[in-house]
Amino acid sequence: MQRKKIAILGAGSWGTALALTLAEKNHIIHMWTRNEKDINDLIKYKENKRYLAGFKLPDNVYYFTDIIDCIKNCEIIVLAVASQAIRSVLEKIKNSVYINQLFVNVSKGIEKGSLMRISEIVYDYFPENHYVVLSGPSHAEEVSRKIPTTIVAASKNRWAAELVQDIFITPNLRVYTNPDVVGVEIGGSLKNVIALGAGICDGLGFGDNAKAALMTRGIREIARLGVAMGAYSSTFAGLTGIGDLIVTCTSMHSRNRRCGILLGQGHSLEEAVSSIGMVVEGVYTTSAAYKLSQKYNVEMPITAEIYKIIYEGYSARESVYSLMCRSKTHEIEEVIEQNISGW
Amino acid sequence: MQRKKIAILGAGSWGTALALTLAEKNHIIHMWTRNEKDINDLIKYKENKRYLAGFKLPDNVYYFTDIIDCIKNCEIIVLAVASQAIRSVLEKIKNSVYINQLFVNVSKGIEKGSLMRISEIVYDYFPENHYVVLSGPSHAEEVSRKIPTTIVAASKNRWAAELVQDIFITPNLRVYTNPDVVGVEIGGSLKNVIALGAGICDGLGFGDNAKAALMTRGIREIARLGVAMGAYSSTFAGLTGIGDLIVTCTSMHSRNRRCGILLGQGHSLEEAVSSIGMVVEGVYTTSAAYKLSQKYNVEMPITAEIYKIIYEGYSARESVYSLMCRSKTHEIEEVIEQNISGW
Repeated sequence: MQRKKIAILGAGSWGTALALTLAEKNHIIHMWTRNEKDINDLIKYKENKRYLAGFKLPDNVYYFTDIIDCIKNCEIIVLAVASQAIRSVLEKIKNSVYINQLFVNVSKGIEKGSLMRISEIVYDYFPENHYVVLSGPSHAEEVSRKIPTTIVAASKNRWAAELVQDIFITPNLRVYTNPDVVGVEIGGSLKNVIALGAGICDGLGFGDNAKAALMTRGIREIARLGVAMGAYSSTFAGLTGIGDLIVTCTSMHSRNRRCGILLGQGHSLEEAVSSIGMVVEGVYTTSAAYKLSQKYNVEMPITAEIYKIIYEGYSARESVYSLMCRSKTHEIEEVIEQNISGW
Repeated sequence: MQRKKIAILGAGSWGTALALTLAEKNHIIHMWTRNEKDINDLIKYKENKRYLAGFKLPDNVYYFTDIIDCIKNCEIIVLAVASQAIRSVLEKIKNSVYINQLFVNVSKGIEKGSLMRISEIVYDYFPENHYVVLSGPSHAEEVSRKIPTTIVAASKNRWAAELVQDIFITPNLRVYTNPDVVGVEIGGSLKNVIALGAGICDGLGFGDNAKAALMTRGIREIARLGVAMGAYSSTFAGLTGIGDLIVTCTSMHSRNRRCGILLGQGHSLEEAVSSIGMVVEGVYTTSAAYKLSQKYNVEMPITAEIYKIIYEGYSARESVYSLMCRSKTHEIEEVIEQNISGW
């Protein structure tokens, strides 16, 4: 395909892995990050020693300390900063974006306070621009090592989703399209809450049985909220739903899971987060998800328990037991309600 | 609840873990297994040193070398032998079962040749008896260690499902009921095919991203077949569907996954199976699932590739790449077909 000029805002592990992948496809990459030392190190080493060590970035990756210079003439602007920083980044560029510049968001979270999804924040600033969210089970290091990975490009606009598919696809990074922006954003964000819970299970010394049960019920309550917000339920059975949840809950790559393990072992939230040393999205998302469940009046028992552990000092062990031992006895209430013969 | 007399046929790890759990609830347990040496060792050591070492069985577990003696006066008969051995066990007891004896099946598989589910085989012999299938993410060792676990009791008859729930439930083993026998049996059996595939991914050195994608698509194709056979699609989103699949694909407890790892590393099927040293249900199930997909005309690309690797000598690496790189581009075809605005 035609060579594109692509700005990547944020130089964490995923932003860097995408820079590497796109640069190897011969696109021209502009990278920016808020931290000047990080940019200077990238220029010096042509490698992100801090977040994605071991992968040399090609010469068609250029580095910027000025965000306006970075996005100039870029057809694609990739948002790869932590979700709570998205608004401040958009604020910086709000007078410098043209209508033909397409946003690709790869960050996963809900804005604290406003409870907005990233697409809603972007729409707030740039209602005329196309928006695509790229999400799925995709640890940065594996993508950089060219281990097969599948992700989803979701947009309200099919043309935009397919353009992003063409730009990002490689033999080892398969990109599928999906029209369900709400479902992809909710699944990608809220899986981090369940990942904290899975980590807590691990930290408590619980086993694979309990964790699988937590994940199974976790994706169900996420789907319930998503559907109440306008998502398709089928999205939660896909790569950005259960697929991403599985990766995040089972892999030691996941910061959210690692944070949960420390909580389960009895460390305080402050200790856990400072020991991880990077943003733990799930901590913010737990609060947002809890408030969304109230706003949309959706029952989310796992989210509520994680919220109590993180924000109200409840005991992790008691919370997990209370989840496991709820009085619910039929697995599929909706089936029972159908009045099946013999039931 | 009232003390029950329960026969457990089969003394593998799961049968033994259930004997332990039920005996600790003060039920009277009769155990039988085909192998006389195993029975003699159980009598001698009050422990299943071969399949579940480290757990002493209480004195209210009794051991039988005669299967007819074993089931006599038992209200519940638990089938805990390998799925391919179910018919021969039923054949032995066919003239000795009373109508008020309830069958609980805990084995997971499809009969070779006939392609019958276990409930169908039991119905063949005992059409008047109640039948409950007990399934879910439940590694025997974790249940024996009293680590929280959730499972499902499914039956066409609600009374039977609830009786089994009452008999098996403990504070650490939560039992839910479900009317969908077909869905629970298909999910429990066919997850072993995907577990072989997950193991192959691991054996090839692929990562968490690829495995999560395989599991996500795996449960979808299992659900497609199940629904064609009369199951509820919601069952596959539950504990006996994605829940059991997650455990089987991510835990080293799983024989099927370990067998897949050996296949992915380049060992032959014979080498892999003999190295595991126990029945690898997924090997039989792959053939049965492949034939069921043809019989019901359901597309099952992962099952087909695993079948080719196991039975037709295809290269594991090429098969997995062909799965990852299929030309499919939209994640959710059914949504596309709905003609959404902008799509």
